[in-house]
Amino acid sequence: MKKVILTYGTFDLFHIGHLNLLRNLKSLGDYLIVGVSTDAFNAQKGKRTVISFEERIDIVQSLKCVDLTLPEHCWEQKARDITEHGVSVFGMGDDWQGHFDGLKALCEVVYLPRTAGISSSALKHCLREIALAG
Amino acid sequence: MKKVILTYGTFDLFHIGHLNLLRNLKSLGDYLIVGVSTDAFNAQKGKRTVISFEERIDIVQSLKCVDLTLPEHCWEQKARDITEHGVSVFGMGDDWQGHFDGLKALCEVVYLPRTAGISSSALKHCLREIALAG
Repeated sequence: MKKVILTYGTFDLFHIGHLNLLRNLKSLGDYLIVGVSTDAFNAQKGKRTVISFEERIDIVQSLKCVDLTLPEHCWEQKARDITEHGVSVFGMGDDWQGHFDGLKALCEVVYLPRTAGISSSALKHCLREIALAG
Repeated sequence: MKKVILTYGTFDLFHIGHLNLLRNLKSLGDYLIVGVSTDAFNAQKGKRTVISFEERIDIVQSLKCVDLTLPEHCWEQKARDITEHGVSVFGMGDDWQGHFDGLKALCEVVYLPRTAGISSSALKHCLREIALAG
């Protein structure tokens, strides 16, 4: 039986940190499902992206390590997705350490190390510095 | 016999325009080879990237539509790569229209439409506007 891994994210300005995390998650099992936050859900969280939902999910779905993508509409969705898709491992970057321990009743929950020195925020900050300097 | 397609690019700040072009190129054949410009080659062209060569080529190689990546070191390399890899179609975005017609002696040369409204330059410009406004 295939071992299903599930994660969520926004994946704005797709970068190597996203890719490394998704590959590391995939290595924990056979089938990787990635929930991508919709623009409406991000707005609700007060988060603004540079890239639209349609483009963000299209890029994530185009990766070799990703088997299925789905839109993430709300916080409550995670438990439902775990049950519906027979998920064995729920994984996030360790910037979320402890945040989703409530899901341990449903499946294994892991927090993986993030790639040092890169994040969408760091990238935006770096681009901001370049813009202001130029 | 597999039909080999070849293209080149920098793929800085990977975006939907890159992905659409690569998918369209792949649809012309069976095996897509992508040359990714090294940092040294970009420097020679006076082009500065936000993302390093190692990360840019890693992201391109991770795409389902890409079969092989190779570093692009110089302009002269294209003819050699076409011969070495048995390339049937050399393809680029139509911002390069006519530039590589000299390669028609070696294989078919096509220029495909780019996705409207997005490019690494446009993205940097947009981020610059956000930075300056913020």
